[in-house]
Amino acid sequence: MAGKSVPLSPLAPKTYPVMPAIPGVAFATAEAGIRYKNRTDVLLVSLSEGTAMAGVFTRSKCPSAPVDWCRAILKGGMARGIVVNSGNANAFTGQKGAEAVEETARIAAKALGCTPQEIAIASTGVIGEPLDAQKFAPVLADCAKRAEGLAFLDAARAIMTTDTFPKIATTTAKIDNVEVRISGFAKGAGMIAPDMATMLSFIFTDAAISAPALQVMLASGVKDSFNALTIDSDTSTSDTLLLFATGKAGARGQRLVETVQDARLSGFKRALNALLLDLAKQVARDGEGARKFVSITVEGAASKRAAKTIAFSIANSPLVKTAIAGEDANWGRIVAAIGKAGEKAERDLISIRFGDIRVAHLGARDPQYSEAAASAYMRREEIEITVSLGIGRGKATVYTCDLTKAYVEINGDYRS
Amino acid sequence: MAGKSVPLSPLAPKTYPVMPAIPGVAFATAEAGIRYKNRTDVLLVSLSEGTAMAGVFTRSKCPSAPVDWCRAILKGGMARGIVVNSGNANAFTGQKGAEAVEETARIAAKALGCTPQEIAIASTGVIGEPLDAQKFAPVLADCAKRAEGLAFLDAARAIMTTDTFPKIATTTAKIDNVEVRISGFAKGAGMIAPDMATMLSFIFTDAAISAPALQVMLASGVKDSFNALTIDSDTSTSDTLLLFATGKAGARGQRLVETVQDARLSGFKRALNALLLDLAKQVARDGEGARKFVSITVEGAASKRAAKTIAFSIANSPLVKTAIAGEDANWGRIVAAIGKAGEKAERDLISIRFGDIRVAHLGARDPQYSEAAASAYMRREEIEITVSLGIGRGKATVYTCDLTKAYVEINGDYRS
Repeated sequence: MAGKSVPLSPLAPKTYPVMPAIPGVAFATAEAGIRYKNRTDVLLVSLSEGTAMAGVFTRSKCPSAPVDWCRAILKGGMARGIVVNSGNANAFTGQKGAEAVEETARIAAKALGCTPQEIAIASTGVIGEPLDAQKFAPVLADCAKRAEGLAFLDAARAIMTTDTFPKIATTTAKIDNVEVRISGFAKGAGMIAPDMATMLSFIFTDAAISAPALQVMLASGVKDSFNALTIDSDTSTSDTLLLFATGKAGARGQRLVETVQDARLSGFKRALNALLLDLAKQVARDGEGARKFVSITVEGAASKRAAKTIAFSIANSPLVKTAIAGEDANWGRIVAAIGKAGEKAERDLISIRFGDIRVAHLGARDPQYSEAAASAYMRREEIEITVSLGIGRGKATVYTCDLTKAYVEINGDYRS
Repeated sequence: MAGKSVPLSPLAPKTYPVMPAIPGVAFATAEAGIRYKNRTDVLLVSLSEGTAMAGVFTRSKCPSAPVDWCRAILKGGMARGIVVNSGNANAFTGQKGAEAVEETARIAAKALGCTPQEIAIASTGVIGEPLDAQKFAPVLADCAKRAEGLAFLDAARAIMTTDTFPKIATTTAKIDNVEVRISGFAKGAGMIAPDMATMLSFIFTDAAISAPALQVMLASGVKDSFNALTIDSDTSTSDTLLLFATGKAGARGQRLVETVQDARLSGFKRALNALLLDLAKQVARDGEGARKFVSITVEGAASKRAAKTIAFSIANSPLVKTAIAGEDANWGRIVAAIGKAGEKAERDLISIRFGDIRVAHLGARDPQYSEAAASAYMRREEIEITVSLGIGRGKATVYTCDLTKAYVEINGDYRS
């Protein structure tokens, strides 16, 4: 990317939501010159005292140094700040990488008046290059002074790499009849097949909820949102999803929710899950080179897990994705992707629909198949594929985008 | 490719081997008009009486009708003929597909004077379209009359789809001090991630070897050849690899080999395995849109199986493959692919080499890393990547190609 101008994804949202401030959360961004020139590449988030934290991370066996750090500090369950940089992932950087994270935490802690163990850190960008933490020193103290609650869009922009638009979402829920707000942002674009969370996403609420309760809700909420998302099957070393609760709604009469079983959380859970799904879909809409947003539902599978495995097999198939890019109703490639998934499937029970158009039924082309109708459907910007296996009750939906020449172009010269 | 002219792969062989006839094997090709115009699209192979047969097939849960047929007739262990067509895979075609295969076998059996159960059948092309077996009736009887032993290259051409060059190979081995010949051909190009064999490949020998012994040798030989190959991670519904032994070397004094444990087979096994690897590499060299041939070796893994899983994770990573297409020494993407493979790996023990250039060592960039040297290496046509995990003795090599814009182009309009 490095200064190149990439056109906005045709799937970008036409409007952005107004993002009210969340009591206890403030943002500031700066140009630290990590890799990019003339754009913000570092974000400092200031969190009020008493903020609870939850997080889920990549399952990669080669996690980045910031992921190691966040996993360690998560045990404390509380946070006072976040530092995020783009341009360098600080992954596969050995002992120097770990030292860079510690140094960054010290710099931010000094700026915010807390301990380094209260600073969450995330990095995104090139893997394998040493990160110079000293670049944060001149900017973070200033960021701490400037931080303010309305700068959501600036925050979302500062963490972009090959993203073409910032991804933000906001919603509300009621606890104890007190309205609490949940807002978040995410970055994605490439190396997106999160196995625990997306590349980077940060969610904030002013609700008063304990860290253990937040953690359970987050781990559950990612299953059908970020963990049902793939751009290119490449799981990143840096996937990090963090959820923070400042508890400021306590001042408006919301009593602290201690456990996830508390019935008062039901509305919050629904709102959180919807927000996670919204952000995950935005990431799919901004997949590198994407021109179509694709939802793939597999139903009638032996189990939910089997349905998801088959749905991902379809969503990660380069042949399915290039056919969609070419607006070709080539459902035979979906058959091949079902067949290779390794899960139970019986050829002669399978049906496939594009939107409402049934193209295959009980193991063969639908007798009413119309190439013209199927082709017309493929020209849409949003494609829904449904596979009915007819052997059980397992069902799952995953989200992806098409595979275009632009993806190859973007990734053939990402570093240069 | 339906009439479109695709440029020859830059990785195509510069010369073809002379292919001597194999006693007992004869070929004829014809234009049956299955899908393509003005090119041969059907192959008949005539095999002499007493020919033993072995085969391995796709593990797809949605196998094509010809795969079902071959699996069934393989129990007999003997064959007198093969019919192969390109342009239509006869996959996901239901009961009509099974009937089309039976009808094809009847037509070929009549032409060759044998039973339908002695006819092997393979089809390649579009999935999900009914195949009209009657198109074979006018041409197969004529093919049977014209068949001759030297037409290897014509045979290899007749089964091509998006392949840009025919893939053939020949070698010899000695059994009982009698020289026997082994020759074969294959087709590949796209939807290539064989889980048991490649798309289509046929191997012939005049050796006298029993069907059970052939079967064991073939199943073993594919592990490090066709089953160590991926173009695009998409396993086909139709993968079929068949091995035929006519036994004609018996006339030159070779006594029948009954069991695979027979020590007289050692040279034959070596020659067969080398031929399988040769053909598999040719398939990688003709991957759709390929401009670079890539070998990926993982060593020091917990087991051979783990090494292969990690090697495939790298070989199937779109980000690794696009970086290679862009001649970018982006070894950080190899780290990500190791990390997502799910097999045991310890970040701080990993080293990575491009050819002889060590780019990463013990979990970080190599201290002697030179971007210039790594970039110069990436401009080569053949790229060798070696990953040392440092935790065990497991080792495996897999073969693939780069991912270029041409792959997206070819597969965005394959059917149209």
